[in-house]
Amino acid sequence: MAPTAEDFQRLVERVEALEAKIAINDLITTYGPAVDSGCAEAVASLWTEDGVYDVDTGVMNGSKAIEAMVRSKAHQSWIGGGCGHLSEPLHVVVDGDTAVATGHTQLVIHNGDGTFRVHRVTANRWELVRQDGAWKVAKRTGRVLDGRPEARDLLAAGVQ
Amino acid sequence: MAPTAEDFQRLVERVEALEAKIAINDLITTYGPAVDSGCAEAVASLWTEDGVYDVDTGVMNGSKAIEAMVRSKAHQSWIGGGCGHLSEPLHVVVDGDTAVATGHTQLVIHNGDGTFRVHRVTANRWELVRQDGAWKVAKRTGRVLDGRPEARDLLAAGVQ
Amino acid sequence: MAPTAEDFQRLVERVEALEAKIAINDLITTYGPAVDSGCAEAVASLWTEDGVYDVDTGVMNGSKAIEAMVRSKAHQSWIGGGCGHLSEPLHVVVDGDTAVATGHTQLVIHNGDGTFRVHRVTANRWELVRQDGAWKVAKRTGRVLDGRPEARDLLAAGVQ
Repeated sequence: MAPTAEDFQRLVERVEALEAKIAINDLITTYGPAVDSGCAEAVASLWTEDGVYDVDTGVMNGSKAIEAMVRSKAHQSWIGGGCGHLSEPLHVVVDGDTAVATGHTQLVIHNGDGTFRVHRVTANRWELVRQDGAWKVAKRTGRVLDGRPEARDLLAAGVQ
Repeated sequence: MAPTAEDFQRLVERVEALEAKIAINDLITTYGPAVDSGCAEAVASLWTEDGVYDVDTGVMNGSKAIEAMVRSKAHQSWIGGGCGHLSEPLHVVVDGDTAVATGHTQLVIHNGDGTFRVHRVTANRWELVRQDGAWKVAKRTGRVLDGRPEARDLLAAGVQ
Repeated sequence: MAPTAEDFQRLVERVEALEAKIAINDLITTYGPAVDSGCAEAVASLWTEDGVYDVDTGVMNGSKAIEAMVRSKAHQSWIGGGCGHLSEPLHVVVDGDTAVATGHTQLVIHNGDGTFRVHRVTANRWELVRQDGAWKVAKRTGRVLDGRPEARDLLAAGVQ
């Protein structure tokens, strides 16, 4: 018996669910290579225009503020000396046109003498939205895993 | 010509193979955020009820023992001071309702003064089973990559 | 209305696009476990026969040269003492039967006294080809992120 329209539609939806997971991975894996090579526009374009990047040291409001961070003297100094913003595979939960991705990142810094150090390990929560079929970051929150409770809360929220 | 039932079934099976890979990734990516935020039940529920977590320092038998590890003074002390259990993308081989996932994890510890150190790098073998459509951990084995041959053997077994 | 041949073919192509992403992940996640366990043939077989592995210290031409690197005294000494070649999730762009995967790797070394250090963080570009349906590495280029511009260029090329 040939598949019915309903059979087919159900399979289309299963494929769409997989496509969302892969698309979110494609989006987030852009961050590290872009930020470590100073591609300010590529970094900023991951966020919605009014997207937020909230880190321990402050909040960047809007993709223009995020682009400015990449172009800042502070960030240019990190990448000029050598650094790597690395991520692990994130835990992604999709709910319609929104999604949350949770996991750790590491910032590894070149000490200037050929040696490296882990500068920090951070808990991350990426809140994502799908706009016109494309996933974007609405808000990314990062908190250093130095014992502060909010870092643990942020990880817990993504897997409970 | 419209697709036949056989064409359709073959495509369903290809989608199922992809779903298994994504579901296993969803499962394993829960571990790090859950263990670093002390979500003892979320960690334990990744394993089957009689699942095993075998590490260098001992063997935990059953999900209750794994839950107790997360609640232990030792683990609570790690997460209270700040730590990150990070994974890399694992190599996953699915065989029907069982699967093996192989790869490295890192434990990065906050030193208490704002600096961090890689405390250990571990070779991991996750043996997974599908029960009632849901993937669970039957056994996870971890061996520190400090030169001991069993750590190398465990990695080799997953990719040969 | 039952699906048409065109509907079905479009869905097949979407599934094929997902399969390519997963297959490339399966390929690249073999590298770390294989190289750290000294599986020289498994490492070499990731490349095409005339594949290239271009690192800061030199260029290996052909899978035989890559196999020899794994068997070399230098590499055997790393793995004998304990080490981990870890990757993050890579940013993968597929274009027909070729693909580029971009991201960071870390080499973490056991110091010999139970402690570990990040020996280096590397920018990676994997150029992949599909041959008879199987993805292989045509060229992998790695450059240490110690401030050298070519490491940043390599990351930028993958995400712009």
